[in-house]
This record gives sequence, C-alpha cells and structure tokens, in this order.
Amino acid sequence: MGFGERVAEGVARAGTPLVIGIDLRPDDVPPGVDVSEYQRFLIAVAAEEPRVAGVKLQSAFYERLGAPRGSTLLLDAIRYARHEDLITIVDAKRGDIGPTAEAYAEAYLGTEAPLAVVGADAGDGAADALTVNPYLGRDSLEPFVRVAERKGRGVFVLVRTSNPGALDIQELHLRDGRRVYERVAELVEGLAAPSADASGYGAVGAVVGATIGSAETAAALRKLMPHCILLVPGIGAQGGRAEDLSPFFDARGGGALVPVSRAILGAWRDRNELHWKDAIRTAVRRFRDDIARAAQ
Amino acid sequence: MGFGERVAEGVARAGTPLVIGIDLRPDDVPPGVDVSEYQRFLIAVAAEEPRVAGVKLQSAFYERLGAPRGSTLLLDAIRYARHEDLITIVDAKRGDIGPTAEAYAEAYLGTEAPLAVVGADAGDGAADALTVNPYLGRDSLEPFVRVAERKGRGVFVLVRTSNPGALDIQELHLRDGRRVYERVAELVEGLAAPSADASGYGAVGAVVGATIGSAETAAALRKLMPHCILLVPGIGAQGGRAEDLSPFFDARGGGALVPVSRAILGAWRDRNELHWKDAIRTAVRRFRDDIARAAQ
Repeated sequence: MGFGERVAEGVARAGTPLVIGIDLRPDDVPPGVDVSEYQRFLIAVAAEEPRVAGVKLQSAFYERLGAPRGSTLLLDAIRYARHEDLITIVDAKRGDIGPTAEAYAEAYLGTEAPLAVVGADAGDGAADALTVNPYLGRDSLEPFVRVAERKGRGVFVLVRTSNPGALDIQELHLRDGRRVYERVAELVEGLAAPSADASGYGAVGAVVGATIGSAETAAALRKLMPHCILLVPGIGAQGGRAEDLSPFFDARGGGALVPVSRAILGAWRDRNELHWKDAIRTAVRRFRDDIARAAQ
Repeated sequence: MGFGERVAEGVARAGTPLVIGIDLRPDDVPPGVDVSEYQRFLIAVAAEEPRVAGVKLQSAFYERLGAPRGSTLLLDAIRYARHEDLITIVDAKRGDIGPTAEAYAEAYLGTEAPLAVVGADAGDGAADALTVNPYLGRDSLEPFVRVAERKGRGVFVLVRTSNPGALDIQELHLRDGRRVYERVAELVEGLAAPSADASGYGAVGAVVGATIGSAETAAALRKLMPHCILLVPGIGAQGGRAEDLSPFFDARGGGALVPVSRAILGAWRDRNELHWKDAIRTAVRRFRDDIARAAQ
C-alpha cells in the first residue's frame, strides 16, 4: 500500500483528519504524572473510539529529555502508536546533504530503522512519516523520498509554516513574481507525483500552516500540490480556527492531516487537574468534530 | 568568555582553523574496529600535537546507530572533546518554531543539557556550538541565540551550503536583485552583531560551503557578515581545495573554521588497512598545514 492510501484509510477509519500532536513540554504534563504514562494515555485516547487519524511526535521534546531516556520514550511512542494502527509522524524537520540525509532517512523511515535495533522486531521502530526541511534543495530531499517510496512511508516537506518568521524567508518575493514558498511547493509536487497511488497522493507531502492568511492562498497551495498530502498545523494555540481549514482539503474532503497539540495537551489547565484525563478527552472530541466538519 | 573569543583562542592554540568532521559512516570505520574506539581515536588525534581547532560531530550518523547506542556515543564524544579543550560543534541542522526551538537549544547548548542528564556533572553534555536551519525565519533562530549568548556558546546558521541542491532555494533571485542566501546572511549578521566580543565575532556564525563558486562570492559573504564566524565545509571529498579558502578569512586570518570529514576519515582506504591510524594522522597533518597556509 502506498503512503497516500495508508493516510486515506487512516482518515476514513477515524472519520476525521485530526492528528494529536504529542509535544512533551514539561509544563503540559499534569503535576505528579509520569511522562511515560502521560504519553501512553495520549496515544490510547487517539486510538479509542471515536478515534483520530494519527499522532505527530515532536522530536525536540524527546531530545530535550536527554540520552537515553528521550530516545527510548520516542521509540516506545512509535511502537505503541503503530501497534494501534495510528498514522505515526515523527516531526523532526531533518535536512542535510545527500549522504547524510540518507542516514536520517534510514534512521526514521528505513526497514532497519536503528530505533528498532533496541527491540527484537526490526523495522518496528520506524515511523510512517517524517517531516523534513527543504533549505538544502532537491538532493537533500531525494534520499528521504527514496526510502519512503520503498517502504510505503511518507515525507512531509516544510513549505509554508505557521509562525511569524515564515515571512523572513518563505514569503520573500522572487524576480519571477512568485514567492520562495511557491517554488518550494513546485519542487515538492515534482517529488510527490511519481509515487501517486490509487488515492491520488504520493509519498511526499507538504507542511502548510493553517494561519497562512487568506482562503485564496490556501486554495492556491492545494492546487499547486495536487499529489501532496498537506500537514496543516496551527489550529488552536497558534490561533488558527477549524472552520478555516476547508480550502486545504480536496473536493472529497481528503488530502490533509491536521495536527493539534497544545490546545489538546494543555486542556486540563482550565479544569481541576485531578480530571486531566477527562479534559484532554473532551478537547480531542471537540477538535475531532470541528475538523471533520471543515473537511466535509 | 564570548564564543568569538573561545574560537579565536582554540584556533590560535592549534595554529590552524581545521576541525575534524566526525561522520560515523559505517563504511568509513576500518574493518574490525569498534565504533566507540574509532571515535575516541579521532578525538585523540584532534587533540594531540600538532593539534587542530576542534571537532564537528554529525548527528545523523549517531541517530542512525539507534537508541540508546547513538545518543550515548554522541554524549561520550562531546564530553571527551570538551575535556580535551577542542571546540565541539554538533552538526544537527535543527530548526523549528519558537517554543520547540527552545527545547532544541536547551538540549544541545543549555546548562542543564539533557545529554548531560545521564552523567553526574550537569552541563558537561552540552556542545560549544550547534548548526541550525533558517527556513522558519528569525523567531525560529532567536531561542538558539539566547541560549548561546547566555552560555558563551555558538550557533552556526546555514546560509549557503556546499551541495548541488543549494541552487534550488538558496540561489533563487529575489525581486530586489539579491539572492535568498544574501537575505539569510543579513538576518544572521543582525543576530550576531549584538553579541560581538573582543574578538570582533558574536555568538552567531554562518555555514558557507567552500564550493560556492568564485572568490568574489566568498569575499562578498565575508563582508556581508563581519560579526559571524564562518563554518566552511566542502574541502576534500566534496571537491573544494584548501588554497581557495583565503577569502573566507578576515584580514588577520581569523573568523573561519574549516571542517574536513571524509577526506580524513576515509584516508586509510588507499593504504594497507592495518595502518589506518597512520593514514588518518597523515591526512590530518596535510589538511592542517594546507588550511593554515590559506588562512595566512
């Protein structure tokens, strides 16, 4: 099964393109709760009915936890989430020149993913998809694409991010009238098209922030990358609203995944912290429904 | 001591801006040699007389080795290299939106660097400097700069890389007549200037490939970023020649570090592999002298 079909199946099964963004920020973990237990609870919520499409694991917070604890926790999350048949995205935004990119690609998406070396079942430690950074150009992306295609996995390339600094480089005006991110979008579409499967989508997707401005911009990017699944962060804590997501989806309501992190993980703060699990479950269901509606 | 002074001191002591690039590619490790022993040998060579300025540790190959082995090896390398008073650069090319960038900055440059959590001596696991990617803009770089300034450490931002794909985004022509990488260079200089110390250089440097083309381009970038130490890869296996390095240095022969990896680490291949240590030592001395000459 190609990555496009894998995503379509996961979204159809969940009835929502919502992905829980697991950012293990120390101050989001409820007081007295072990971080490993907290992470397992979040994945269990993602997989229980009514389920969501997947989880996005933010690498920075695992790295912040130090060696070997962080990497062991990340491996545990990948394995548990894949066991629960959740689409499992490692958000590591890697990028380097060719031979080095190959090492990253093997590390996160390969059969003999080294994360898997710890356990008995080689390959089990690889994620379904990895986020990557395009600043080093096509030859820095190709090793990720090759490994993803070979394994039925995916790569999400940063195209237009949701932070204010996106203006500094991504939005620069080019001599030919386009913006930098539009050229990146073309590059990404060119990498995605050859692996398009029955779903219409290829092994290469794009990260496009929900807060990029107008519905026209969103629709233009959707059109510019017809073979790319969009990963659309920025809903909730970053100010994006679920009702603005419609232009990111295709005519059938497919082609996009929507990660929400802080607005779900920090939902217990407004409540009695003894009820943190209820607060997180309630937030998941609210975003689940709001986002499913936008995809219709 | 500021990062600029730290680098100037390291280069002066070694008499060369050469940095050994430790890329733990499986096929560069001589047959039958343990990777941990191999790494320790490389650091020992960097620190023995005639010493070099530092080591650059490529994160991808540690990540490829899997958890927890890779992260433990990286920690061991950082500690040993810092103990030997080598400038210790982790080449991880990280980059993410603000709060996430903070986690990366703390992970690699902070006092309570999590890499250090393993050991007794907190802080010992932090590197002197980290490479970062600018595609997400200023607010994605500032958390790294803040931590680096606070700790007397450094950040090297990718500006113009040495691979062919550098043409795809970095070299795009902007409407105002400049190229994307020149705008990035201005952004990076703006981040570096406030922390310039007695050396003239700040906590923020730039990665500029040795193979970027003409001496004029190199000189222009040197001039555009007067407060940035340049990290100049591309010599050796990527085709750059030591004699072309001159324009990257300032008038006093300072302001640049030159990592060489494959041409040193793979030097034993042409020889009898029983003499791999001699071959590596010989290659280090050759590059050491060639590069010191270019800096004069």
